[in-house]
Amino acid sequence: MKLWLLDNGSIVIEHTQLMWNVPGPQVRIPSYSVLIEHDDGLFLFDTGFDLEHTSRVLPFELPEQTPEQTIPAQLELCGFRPSDVGTLVNSHLHFDHVGGNKHLTASKVVVHERELAQARDHESFEFFGYSDKTWDYEGARIEPVSGDLELAPGLWLFETPGHTVGHYSLLVGEKLLFAFDVMYTPAALDKEIQAGFHNDPVAGVRSIRRVKAVAAEHAAEVFFSHDMDAWQTYKHAPEFYEL
Amino acid sequence: MKLWLLDNGSIVIEHTQLMWNVPGPQVRIPSYSVLIEHDDGLFLFDTGFDLEHTSRVLPFELPEQTPEQTIPAQLELCGFRPSDVGTLVNSHLHFDHVGGNKHLTASKVVVHERELAQARDHESFEFFGYSDKTWDYEGARIEPVSGDLELAPGLWLFETPGHTVGHYSLLVGEKLLFAFDVMYTPAALDKEIQAGFHNDPVAGVRSIRRVKAVAAEHAAEVFFSHDMDAWQTYKHAPEFYEL
Repeated sequence: MKLWLLDNGSIVIEHTQLMWNVPGPQVRIPSYSVLIEHDDGLFLFDTGFDLEHTSRVLPFELPEQTPEQTIPAQLELCGFRPSDVGTLVNSHLHFDHVGGNKHLTASKVVVHERELAQARDHESFEFFGYSDKTWDYEGARIEPVSGDLELAPGLWLFETPGHTVGHYSLLVGEKLLFAFDVMYTPAALDKEIQAGFHNDPVAGVRSIRRVKAVAAEHAAEVFFSHDMDAWQTYKHAPEFYEL
Repeated sequence: MKLWLLDNGSIVIEHTQLMWNVPGPQVRIPSYSVLIEHDDGLFLFDTGFDLEHTSRVLPFELPEQTPEQTIPAQLELCGFRPSDVGTLVNSHLHFDHVGGNKHLTASKVVVHERELAQARDHESFEFFGYSDKTWDYEGARIEPVSGDLELAPGLWLFETPGHTVGHYSLLVGEKLLFAFDVMYTPAALDKEIQAGFHNDPVAGVRSIRRVKAVAAEHAAEVFFSHDMDAWQTYKHAPEFYEL
């Protein structure tokens, strides 16, 4: 298996969004996707934010994204085209994880069934999170799933609700753990502090603990979705991880 | 019925605590209790914060409370002693609503049964909220209740969970509605934005809507627990409302 991290640019959020109710200065956070070349095909996890949408609907998040940081350009960097992606998985359907879905019209789209329902009929306080609906285009091949599941050998999706109702985390080859938005930073994992945007904070704490337990069980490395310091230490496409 | 608002001083919170995920400057908010002289006896709702506890455990909230703003002093201002209070009701058990409970050792203490259990075994993220445990002294005459209930003619407690699991609001004489911490300000009621500290934001939105519906049904005036501008327009003890 080869695994690439696809750079999607960055946005700025309040510190109380990074860590719920913990004050501090605003912070610029990265956005990235995970591409995996597997014997069963090419898998993509999340698609970042769309610059036009974010600039228009959430301009206060000061989005930065070069043409080279879009999904098609990042795939090309790894030697692929959007039509090569057999399976797209959305960890959840927030705007900064679905922005490139519209480019992957040939892919099967795996998403938690509760997430799908919620994104289409969400709470008022989830407005910004679910503001980009372009993933829900006519003809999208969405395949709702639920429960923990092995997507393919070594690609294990496990339920981690709280941030959103149908949030999935991913364990790759029992070695690399992508917790997506269960928590944003190493300090947040350590202190069990979820992000300010969430649907169910009680479930959110349980999910942070589940990530810790799964990581400990497999001695897996946890990858952080929205931490700039951690991101700088990762390999960025076209560099890759081999498993 | 006579109703007094007892001034308990003020604290400072982040704007994202006043209104969840809405940035802005820090804000100083009032804390107050509600005293009601009723044919069935003297009722007190909430007891504000304890200055020593807040200064020690939450010094970043910059508590201000003069000796005249304590529960015994405020009761005296209205012509009463702590032992005159037959029934104390805690809308919920956060530190800024229970700080004076320890002075009311002769009172029956009415609290939601879920709130009682949660305050004694709370989520990690509720640490500061439930940090003052002095209400739980040996011999405290706590009477757990649940469901909507008429405490006495014209004193209606109705369930409004979300901010905490067992939060009660109060309708007095079908005219005055004390929503306590369902939301903090008139703008928050209008826009249905709960406080940053909460246990269940989905329930929290439902409770804001319930407050709106109850207020509309009875054409009742909503009193805001933590809004300095609104507080300045209210009558402060020894002035009172007559119902």
